[in-house]
Formats: sequence, structure tokens, C-alpha cells
Amino acid sequence: MAVTTTQVRLASRPVAEPLDSDFEIVTEELPEPAEDQVVLRTLYLSLDPYMRGRMSDAESYADPVPLGGVMVGQTVSEVIASRSDRRAVGDVVLAYTGWQSHAVVDARMTKKLDPDAAPVTTALGVLGMPGFTAYGGLLAIGQPKPGETVVVAAATGPVGSAVGQIAKAKGARAVGIAGGPEKCRLLLEEFGFDAAVDHRSPTLRDDLAAATPDGIDVYFENVGGHVATEVTRRLNRFARVPVCGLVAGYNGTEPVGDHDRLPAFMRRVLTKSLTVRGFIQDEFLPTHGAEFQRDMTGWIADGTVRYLEDVVDGLENTPEAFRGLPAGRNVGKLLVKVAD
Amino acid sequence: MAVTTTQVRLASRPVAEPLDSDFEIVTEELPEPAEDQVVLRTLYLSLDPYMRGRMSDAESYADPVPLGGVMVGQTVSEVIASRSDRRAVGDVVLAYTGWQSHAVVDARMTKKLDPDAAPVTTALGVLGMPGFTAYGGLLAIGQPKPGETVVVAAATGPVGSAVGQIAKAKGARAVGIAGGPEKCRLLLEEFGFDAAVDHRSPTLRDDLAAATPDGIDVYFENVGGHVATEVTRRLNRFARVPVCGLVAGYNGTEPVGDHDRLPAFMRRVLTKSLTVRGFIQDEFLPTHGAEFQRDMTGWIADGTVRYLEDVVDGLENTPEAFRGLPAGRNVGKLLVKVAD
Repeated sequence: MAVTTTQVRLASRPVAEPLDSDFEIVTEELPEPAEDQVVLRTLYLSLDPYMRGRMSDAESYADPVPLGGVMVGQTVSEVIASRSDRRAVGDVVLAYTGWQSHAVVDARMTKKLDPDAAPVTTALGVLGMPGFTAYGGLLAIGQPKPGETVVVAAATGPVGSAVGQIAKAKGARAVGIAGGPEKCRLLLEEFGFDAAVDHRSPTLRDDLAAATPDGIDVYFENVGGHVATEVTRRLNRFARVPVCGLVAGYNGTEPVGDHDRLPAFMRRVLTKSLTVRGFIQDEFLPTHGAEFQRDMTGWIADGTVRYLEDVVDGLENTPEAFRGLPAGRNVGKLLVKVAD
Repeated sequence: MAVTTTQVRLASRPVAEPLDSDFEIVTEELPEPAEDQVVLRTLYLSLDPYMRGRMSDAESYADPVPLGGVMVGQTVSEVIASRSDRRAVGDVVLAYTGWQSHAVVDARMTKKLDPDAAPVTTALGVLGMPGFTAYGGLLAIGQPKPGETVVVAAATGPVGSAVGQIAKAKGARAVGIAGGPEKCRLLLEEFGFDAAVDHRSPTLRDDLAAATPDGIDVYFENVGGHVATEVTRRLNRFARVPVCGLVAGYNGTEPVGDHDRLPAFMRRVLTKSLTVRGFIQDEFLPTHGAEFQRDMTGWIADGTVRYLEDVVDGLENTPEAFRGLPAGRNVGKLLVKVAD
């Protein structure tokens, strides 16, 4: 039973925003599974900002996708054939097979999901990597105390919305930054932030001051750019800045100022005794992974944490959907539905 | 018995390097000491880079010296009159009376020194604030492990030389950066660094690479500027950067590049999971103060830690001596001897 897969491959390295011509869609026959392997049919694939980094060959924490290679990423997939005792046909699993319709992988590289415990798509969002990015970064580095002020940008996204809601669960004040009045409304009404600030506002500096009357104790950094500059001005002494992403710079299209902001930034680090700490979520798995699964599952069940998903239909629409990510075109966790 | 004091007052706020005209030397009569006060005669006054910040009214962790006020700073002084049971005439104390020859202060604002335990000048250097800046920042934030590489600039200074020697005591490899071959020789021969790099070298980047073949795990940041940029390029994953000073920028004379280095810096923080943490030494006194006094006294006694002092004679020479500090004109802890 030969299985064919349709793949979205990286055809060239994007210079700024990825173009259609940076990808090619190719169909090919998969090899037969070897012993201990399974054949997977992709149900959903995850689109995340970090993928922009994999398209470039600049030094990063992970190797770039080779030219001609399948774009990487997590998927929720169904087992359609198995040569492993670990997985049965019909199992739904979390895998890392990227932008393609089918794949053959070692069974131990998959994690079985329980569709009765939570919708399987949450394994790519609030119960998965984005949720743990929020949880690990906020609790291990940000360490918000009751009454402190936590600020996060891209706040309607899967990481930002979790950061705000976890901050609230820990007794802190949550202030979200997002683009446009509709997203700001969502922050207040859907996610329960204490205040929302529109980063497109011409009075951003004043708006941020009004939303953070006691300054800022934790800035969960996932965007960079001019938002970060404004937030940094309001950091309190001993503030913590977990850095999990710099979306504004991913396409290299953030306007470059005509002066060097680094000396002023470092001066603020010094005079305010700031902690700035970059991280990749998996470094906290050993210390916070189990706690996360327990806490977050409970918080979703009892309504403490809510989440939104933005599901795009069809593998062929993946590049276009991804392109909207840095611009904030979507709301909530962005997924591509590849098959039913 | 009226006592007069000669004071160096701040006459105007320096724009770049402080000029003679930014100071005025004034003599005035001191008030009689009130109950619980003592009259002090300054023996030595300390000159430290942080004082440049006090001359400016830019926001910082401490208020600026007011125009017309006496320049602040620690001193080693002799009690010449006492209305307190705590201190007797002839006691030698650590005080904070600044750039002047005499002062009247509350006895409880002084700390009695034991001239038999260590030379009293060490209370301004290796056993005092600079030594504790090195100790607290390196151990609380830098946390060097045996075999790791610790880099510090301004390495012949009182903070830098202590950082390198404490790193060695903790089993780490110590690499010092200093200006010129004579200082580099001192690093190796006097302070026992494993390698020395001359920041004036046209091949700084290659020299640093050769001196840190395994990359850099701790960069004790006290200078900023182009040295910091070069060091940052070699930081390993999970490296720690305690930030205690940015001398290169203190006079506002570091050349400002025409491009913004902040995005690249933050990208490195992210991709290398760096910890960048500003600090003022006194925040670690509760946790590390007692340990420091015990460790450092022992290390000086057994030769593990050595120190150099650069003693300038005469209060009137204080502004000129201070001016040489950011340029690295002195070697070791800079003191002004005000009286015998």
C-alpha cells in the first residue's frame, strides 16, 4: 500500500517577508515503514513565529531547514499504519513532521493524545509548546508576585494570551498589548486582562503609562521593536524580562533607527537592576513540564485559561497563512487543517 | 575648637569629561558636633567610576550631587572629636563624607576599622565596595562553575582584578581585558589570570577568540562599548552577564555607531538563552555580605587574592585624578591621600 505525501518545501531563503516563490509544493511516494515505525496522516499542522528563523541561515538555536527540505513543525496526526506495539491504527498523536500531508516516523517520536481529555488541537497551542512557552518563561524567569504588573505584547496570540491569564491566576495585574481596537476588546472581554493597549495608537507612550500606573515588574518579550522600547522605559527596579521571541525583527523589516539604542538599554539594565533572560521553552521541561500539564489542564477545565484558534483549511494555503503571522493578521493559535 | 573643612564641590554638570571648572574648592567652618556625632579628619578618599553618574542629572539608581554640593564618596577617616560612646578619638573608621578634608557625622554612620587586621585602605577597595561588587556580582549572578570561562574588562582595576581572582578561586578560567601591554603583563604576573587581551589591539576579535577557545560562560560587564560587543559574540549558551557598570559610556564620549546594535544584541540574548542582569552591589549585602568578609579576608591573608593601589597625594588633586579613571590612566584601586 504505497502512500504518497504532499510536501511544502523551502525553495529559497526569504529575504524579508516569505514569497510564494520561496516554497514549492511537491508530491512523492513515501517509503514503506520499517520496524517500530508508523505511517501518519496529518490532521492539523502548527504555524508558529519561530519558523521564520528556520527559513534563514543566520545563526540560531536550531539549524535552518535545508533548501529543498520540508518545512518543519509540529503536527497532530492520525496513525494509518503501524509496525510498532506503541501505536495502533486510529491513534491520534502529536508529531513533528512539518508542512506535509503524510509521513513515516519512528513510533517513539510521537506522543499519543487523548481526544476525550481536551480537543487534540490544544496539543499544538495552549496545552503544547506555545502554552508552555508562556508558563515556563513567566514562572521560571518572570516570577510574578501578587499585585505586580505583567505586560505582554502580541497578547491575543497563543503565547501572549496564556501569559496574561497565568499572570492573573498568580495574582498579578495583566496588561496586554495588541494591534487594533478589536484585539484590545478581546483582551479585556475574552481573556480577562486588566488593561489593553493598542500598539498602533499614536499616543502609545501615554496609553502605556495610564495602563501601568505602578510601572512594570515583568515584561514578557516576544515582539521587540518599538513596543519593547516603550515598555522598557517603564520597567521598575528588579523587573524581569523573559525573552522568547522578537517577531518584529524576524522579517528584517522593522525600521532601523538612525541611532544606536544599545547603550541606553544597557544603562537601564544597570540602573534598574533588570534581569533580561532569553529562553527556549524546552529548557524548562525538566523543572516545569509536569507541573504545566497539571496546572494548564485544570485551568482550561475550570475556565481560568481560555484560548482561541484560527484554523486555515488546506495544506496548499500554508505559506499564505504563515505570511500573516508576523503582521498579526490572525487571532489566536494559527493552525492549518490538512485532513478531517 | 572650630574645625574647618576644605571641600571639592560640584560647580557645574560636566558634559563629557569633567573639567577643572566643573569643580570649586571651598573652605568653611564645620558646625559643632551634636550628641552622638563625631568629627572626622579624612585620611583617604575613594575615587570610583560610579561618581561620574552622580555628576549628571540623568535618571539613575541614586540622586545626583546637587550643584554646589560636596562630591560624594567613601572615605577612611580618623575620629578627632567624639560625642558618642560608639567611637573614641583616634579610631579609624569607614565613612561616606566625600571629597573633603573634615566632616561632622552621626557616629552610627561610621564603621570602625581594625588597622591590625588589614591595611585600612583596603576598606575602600578589595575588602570594600569594589571587592564586594566583584564578589556579589560574580557569585550571585555569574555563578561560575569549575572549568567555565569568565571574562572581565578593566581587569587591572579593583573590581576586575577581584573578579578574575575570585573566578580562579572557584575553579574557573579567568580572562582579563585591559589597555596596553603593561596592564596585560600585570594580569598574568600579578593577578594570575589565565589569559590577557589588549583591547587596543587591532586584532581584538582574533585575540579574544584565541584567549577563549571554549567560548565565554560569564562576562562580568563593567565597561560597555566595543569591548562588550566583541565579548558578546563569543558568549556560550546559558552564559551570564552581570552588569555593574558601563564606564565607556559615562562621559558620553563613546563613539555612537550609525546603526542600531540593540536588535542584534537581543537576538543573541534569545538564541543563546543569555542572562543579562544589572546590579548595585548593596542588593547582595543581606545574602552575601558576611560570607564576603570572611572569604576575602582569608583570600588576602593566604595570597589567593592580591590587590594594587594607586595613591594620589592631596585633596586638591582629586578632580585631576578622577579624570584619569575612565581612560584607565591608573592601575589598581585609585585613592587620594588627604592626610597622614
